[in-house]
Amino acid sequence: MISKSQINFVKSLHQKKVRKDLGFFIVEGIKSVTEFLQSDYVVDTIFYTTKEVLKLDILSQNVKLFEIKDEELIKISTLTKPQQVLAIIRIPTRPITPPLELPNDTFTLMLDNIQDPGNLGTIIRTADWFGFNQLICSIDTVDAYNPKVVQASMGSLSRMHILYADLPTLLQHSELPIYGAFLDGKSIHETVFPTTGVLVLGNEGNGISKEVHQYIRYAVTIPRYGQAESLNVAISAAIFCVKIKKGI
Amino acid sequence: MISKSQINFVKSLHQKKVRKDLGFFIVEGIKSVTEFLQSDYVVDTIFYTTKEVLKLDILSQNVKLFEIKDEELIKISTLTKPQQVLAIIRIPTRPITPPLELPNDTFTLMLDNIQDPGNLGTIIRTADWFGFNQLICSIDTVDAYNPKVVQASMGSLSRMHILYADLPTLLQHSELPIYGAFLDGKSIHETVFPTTGVLVLGNEGNGISKEVHQYIRYAVTIPRYGQAESLNVAISAAIFCVKIKKGI
Repeated sequence: MISKSQINFVKSLHQKKVRKDLGFFIVEGIKSVTEFLQSDYVVDTIFYTTKEVLKLDILSQNVKLFEIKDEELIKISTLTKPQQVLAIIRIPTRPITPPLELPNDTFTLMLDNIQDPGNLGTIIRTADWFGFNQLICSIDTVDAYNPKVVQASMGSLSRMHILYADLPTLLQHSELPIYGAFLDGKSIHETVFPTTGVLVLGNEGNGISKEVHQYIRYAVTIPRYGQAESLNVAISAAIFCVKIKKGI
Repeated sequence: MISKSQINFVKSLHQKKVRKDLGFFIVEGIKSVTEFLQSDYVVDTIFYTTKEVLKLDILSQNVKLFEIKDEELIKISTLTKPQQVLAIIRIPTRPITPPLELPNDTFTLMLDNIQDPGNLGTIIRTADWFGFNQLICSIDTVDAYNPKVVQASMGSLSRMHILYADLPTLLQHSELPIYGAFLDGKSIHETVFPTTGVLVLGNEGNGISKEVHQYIRYAVTIPRYGQAESLNVAISAAIFCVKIKKGI
């Protein structure tokens, strides 16, 4: 059973402004919700249509639980095919605090105005696979707590630190080697990435912004063998991840 | 101006069954439509809200042109944000004819039951970038003329041959080395792909089907450095494409 005010509350979290104001976001599906329960995130409420949820031994005593009907889940879900479990999770304050400086003990991925939530979610999932634990996004990058980002990240959002920051400010004081993904740079196959540095990936349509471009020291390209005009940004990110990690 | 029967016709093409019955599909956006006009595909009709379309010097005399209003485009578009141009294009008979045997002069990508249209579209775009010109899909793979596939392929569908075939039948008589993408195979970094062969990528949730699995001679894995449970199939496809083409 779900109350009308609960329905309105969950539905309001479909919007970015409300998520920011109230500090909660939505995660759906038993697998993803389980990964958030196992993480540092605070799971506030779980709505479920299947008893399976109650079998989770990681369910803390502090989670509010509501068994609801399928038709009620449809009302609050962000998915066209709701997945039996919907959780309301607290947005940590960390991700919205801009970091003061770039980490100098690891390689950092930076996203400049990525707009498609599916792309951001897939980049989070891929970066998690390749052992990155942080992404730095420009302020205008799509909200990481957008339901489509959460969905595409397949639980990896629970493990990745997503920081939003003014990229030029961060980059201008950095001594690190700054790489950027471009269509006309040096081949990725001839590039040897250091263990410490930054790679910037740009917007889907316009690439890296002028403001960020001026700080890029090395323009790198994934060579093209065919005729497509460009690669999807999540695809590029993945190929860079392999190269940075494995040095292929 | 668009007639009611035209509206009904275009809207009916949103469905797979109707596309198959009538032999037409929808392409939207000036860039993608232009690429189809430059290809072997037969563009039947173009609905447009911007005069820009008429400036295209590749517009053949046989294309039926209709200037329509924004609100009319919204009615027929498959997109949440319609893009000024919507074309009705003839489905070539080629793609639905199963090939009799696997090409033995090139490396072939094979998709076993890919269900997400965004994934198929992104794989088409990526394969085009890396110079592949053909994809062989299992019969149960999502329809390549699904509007979301067309959209994600960003015009690359106009250059790729998409063949649907019974994969076990094709594979059982082949002498080619058959590779498969698995979570527990030999590392891709230790694999040297030949110039002629086949790589099979499996379904998003279940991987490669049993029926196809029995013909895989080499199980290959993209090593994991972090904690994500799996990689998106389009991401895996891209990493394999780089490796097959570049031999990195």
